[in-house]
Amino acid sequence: MGYRVITISRQFSSGGSLIGKKLAEKLGINCYDREIIGKVAEESGLCEKFIEEKGEYGNKVAIEVFFSTGMYYNGPSVEDNIWALQHKIITELAEKEACVIVGRCADYILKNRKDVMNVFIHADKEDRIERLKKECDKKIAIPDVYLKEMDRRRSTYVQFYTDMKWGDSKNYDITLNSSSVGIDACVEILADLYKNNNN
Amino acid sequence: MGYRVITISRQFSSGGSLIGKKLAEKLGINCYDREIIGKVAEESGLCEKFIEEKGEYGNKVAIEVFFSTGMYYNGPSVEDNIWALQHKIITELAEKEACVIVGRCADYILKNRKDVMNVFIHADKEDRIERLKKECDKKIAIPDVYLKEMDRRRSTYVQFYTDMKWGDSKNYDITLNSSSVGIDACVEILADLYKNNNN
Repeated sequence: MGYRVITISRQFSSGGSLIGKKLAEKLGINCYDREIIGKVAEESGLCEKFIEEKGEYGNKVAIEVFFSTGMYYNGPSVEDNIWALQHKIITELAEKEACVIVGRCADYILKNRKDVMNVFIHADKEDRIERLKKECDKKIAIPDVYLKEMDRRRSTYVQFYTDMKWGDSKNYDITLNSSSVGIDACVEILADLYKNNNN
Repeated sequence: MGYRVITISRQFSSGGSLIGKKLAEKLGINCYDREIIGKVAEESGLCEKFIEEKGEYGNKVAIEVFFSTGMYYNGPSVEDNIWALQHKIITELAEKEACVIVGRCADYILKNRKDVMNVFIHADKEDRIERLKKECDKKIAIPDVYLKEMDRRRSTYVQFYTDMKWGDSKNYDITLNSSSVGIDACVEILADLYKNNNN
């Protein structure tokens, strides 16, 4: 069976979103990244800024309390509802069309499908800091510490909502360092791999 | 700067050695895999079978005692000497020629060079068991448990002798699942990546 959907998990500020966008353009399919936030907003009534953070990082305090004490609140939190909505939307998207889905644990959500190509993108620290300075709208005092904290939170979020280890190569069909390989070469390699599996 | 050396780290029975061999043939360079064992044997006087195991798995008891108690014996063990010899041989090989080096923490040993392409190969469990049955000369009672134990020992060995996490995508330029991608497609992707970085 060939590939239908491509999921791209990525380090924050690694160029993963850009690679997803360019890859989808090259393959003539849709890329769902921030678009998923819009869909969750529509269905939940929550504001996009809130969903953007909670949908990939969760409730920091609740998750940390859970990991240190094993205790969890009763009943679903707002973050759990966002997770459930993202789950539903991503499942429906994969059912509806061939597409690229960036982030939001799509690899885990679609793990029972056989037609999904799972990708992880990471980058060198210097490169990530450079991209952060260019693209982030808020001022980051110590980018190095900020990136470490973002990695820690994303990895904890994945551990909390799934049984997968974020960034462990064994979860993905392919992982790429966008700094050493280059953004366009990443797109090229992924497009070829996708197309060769559909021939 | 282009790539000169390719290191291939791999799960046991994942096809990583075969990929290294085919890749080197395609690129017209040498592949050093078991050849390193022969070189260590020459210099150490130890038998190849012993080096093969200790050079990638170390002394199981000593490593486990170290991780559980923090205690370590005084002075270098035979395994430490094998590590030192492998270190020397791999450093010299990278200095001498463009080549593919399979296993033996070559990625860590060459981490200060800028001309090294680091690869990790893994595979699906069913595929690994199939390969194990075909290629392993000893009878394995429960392949599933055997593979888990080999993974655990290789990962502990890497943790003991280096500061890297075995199989964490962030250590490699590229990682590939040889089951979903296919052995020949892996070779193709890696050869292209190597050549494109040398143009």
